[in-house]
Amino acid sequence: MKKYNFNAGPSMLPREVIENTAKQILDFNGSGLSIMEISHRAKDFQPVVDEAVSLVKELLNIPEGYSVIFLGGGASLQFTQIPANFLIKKAGYLNTGAWAKKALKEAKFYGEVVEVASSADKNYTYMPRDFEIPTDLDYLHITTNNTIYGTETREDMDCPVPLIGDMSSDIMSRPVDVSKYTAIYAGAQKNMAMAGVTMIIVKDDMLGKMNREVPTMLNYSTHVEKGSMFNTPPVVPIYSLLETMRWVKAQGGVTEMDRRAKERAEILYGEIDRNKLFHGTVEEDSRSLMNICFVMNEEYKDLEKPFLDFATERGMVGIKGHRSVGGFRASCYNAQTIEGVNELVKAMKDFEAQH
Amino acid sequence: MKKYNFNAGPSMLPREVIENTAKQILDFNGSGLSIMEISHRAKDFQPVVDEAVSLVKELLNIPEGYSVIFLGGGASLQFTQIPANFLIKKAGYLNTGAWAKKALKEAKFYGEVVEVASSADKNYTYMPRDFEIPTDLDYLHITTNNTIYGTETREDMDCPVPLIGDMSSDIMSRPVDVSKYTAIYAGAQKNMAMAGVTMIIVKDDMLGKMNREVPTMLNYSTHVEKGSMFNTPPVVPIYSLLETMRWVKAQGGVTEMDRRAKERAEILYGEIDRNKLFHGTVEEDSRSLMNICFVMNEEYKDLEKPFLDFATERGMVGIKGHRSVGGFRASCYNAQTIEGVNELVKAMKDFEAQH
Repeated sequence: MKKYNFNAGPSMLPREVIENTAKQILDFNGSGLSIMEISHRAKDFQPVVDEAVSLVKELLNIPEGYSVIFLGGGASLQFTQIPANFLIKKAGYLNTGAWAKKALKEAKFYGEVVEVASSADKNYTYMPRDFEIPTDLDYLHITTNNTIYGTETREDMDCPVPLIGDMSSDIMSRPVDVSKYTAIYAGAQKNMAMAGVTMIIVKDDMLGKMNREVPTMLNYSTHVEKGSMFNTPPVVPIYSLLETMRWVKAQGGVTEMDRRAKERAEILYGEIDRNKLFHGTVEEDSRSLMNICFVMNEEYKDLEKPFLDFATERGMVGIKGHRSVGGFRASCYNAQTIEGVNELVKAMKDFEAQH
Repeated sequence: MKKYNFNAGPSMLPREVIENTAKQILDFNGSGLSIMEISHRAKDFQPVVDEAVSLVKELLNIPEGYSVIFLGGGASLQFTQIPANFLIKKAGYLNTGAWAKKALKEAKFYGEVVEVASSADKNYTYMPRDFEIPTDLDYLHITTNNTIYGTETREDMDCPVPLIGDMSSDIMSRPVDVSKYTAIYAGAQKNMAMAGVTMIIVKDDMLGKMNREVPTMLNYSTHVEKGSMFNTPPVVPIYSLLETMRWVKAQGGVTEMDRRAKERAEILYGEIDRNKLFHGTVEEDSRSLMNICFVMNEEYKDLEKPFLDFATERGMVGIKGHRSVGGFRASCYNAQTIEGVNELVKAMKDFEAQH
């Protein structure tokens, strides 16, 4: 039976990315060796990193003066690395969900932290707007897409202080005005690669300003200076990132990714709004195009488990909602197909017809 | 042409590990999805982590009271994580080479550091012995195998203070008396897996003793409590680690790995000692079985490049020595074959005959 992968992350990747990665694992560039067993200093690996950096810069149209690095440890390590490098006295955080809260918590380790705005009052079902940003902040940290609660902002805000974006779950799904950010980071396991690598875009002139001593591995300058090769990088995850970036480019870049994301979301939210059994959990203007959350209407609550089984039998994978929201979550990252979304919609319709 | 992989790391892996990993990348457990795109919370990934932990414990005969975790970021991140968790006032470090020095440097960030012994006086060509260990240290840190300089100790020392071992380049190559250590860590990209995952063995009763506040991701307790799943782990690197551990077990475990390492080293050091062109760089009782370093004798110095070309033409990969030592380095990790070593020896003999 064909599977439709709605996992929230690690998540669906294009089939050609998967097949090309498997191929290089069996024989890297016809060298007779696997990419699993080559030195990261080998002369045929440097072009992998170089092309990956160059494609990220091209796809996001990154202006001069920014560096792109690939690190291990996940976006969660960035929650500490960001303030270690940039929090001198006071930082602002937007509290828009579980991951934003974790980032905020780690920043407190390094200095004063202000919660500039929050949507905790309504269980994170909306993105705060029209909040005031204190001008004495070292930076403002935002989470552009909230995987668990299914909210997102697809606009790059004007910010009177340096802006830092956790884009783990919507990077490469739309054009980004990178010039508005001091740093952008993303655990790559949604739209960029297999799990095991994190991408950081950082404005060069912000580096090395910290008067605090920072451990070498937590210092962005270390990795920028060494082109992500200060220590052994996650070689195979980086290779899969390169393949994914090639795929994004071949498909038409982030503008096309954006168009597809909107098309998928329109179909799925359309059905959620129409179907008598379900409703969306998020305020309309904050709906994520990446993580589409919906629950059973109150009167059909006991059909939750039956629908999950019904959809699973039709090949849907990973649509159970996060325990903080309940119900269902269909993650629709770049590799998600219209076919997958249509199959889910069909399951929703057929299930409705039975009840 | 068949290649003989002597890379220092990432390095040679068993062919069946490579093929089985490629297979799961194409279709994980017959699920129709790639292991690159499954959730780490998926019910068929937990058994991967569980079996990997259980095999590490079995292979190293780890006593009760220790935890095994898998993290991203590399052994270099452990250079800061170890003192963040264990350095309260003063730690001792054995300075046996480049990596040991890097570890020592990071510890200074957290407290007082004593260089308990050093082999810097002779360009790290020996392992210090019979040094005195101050009894007021929070721990003593040692690097059991020095990849760059080709020195190693294959004995587990008695230590009056908690002992911490960086075993990145000789883990799983011999039986270890884990009970003598408080923590052992290893970047997995030599004897355990593809690059991208680091294994840490930590004594449970040492956790949470630190009165310093430690960022969540740097705190070992975080990862022990969550079974390496606090955040998204490097899924595919961990899978390759599991496959490698299965292979080690099937081959006869670490006792057999030890026997093979000795057999390979005897052949290769034997030839280095015999051949008129070469000599080893390390004192005999400190010679590494993992990284076998040798240089051209003074009178044949101009044959260095010609020999490198000669060996490369016969399929040898990665035998150029590190710039700190020069000459040649043949890394012979667990997956290295007698055939590979014999081919290298044959190249050395044939080249000698020509000169």
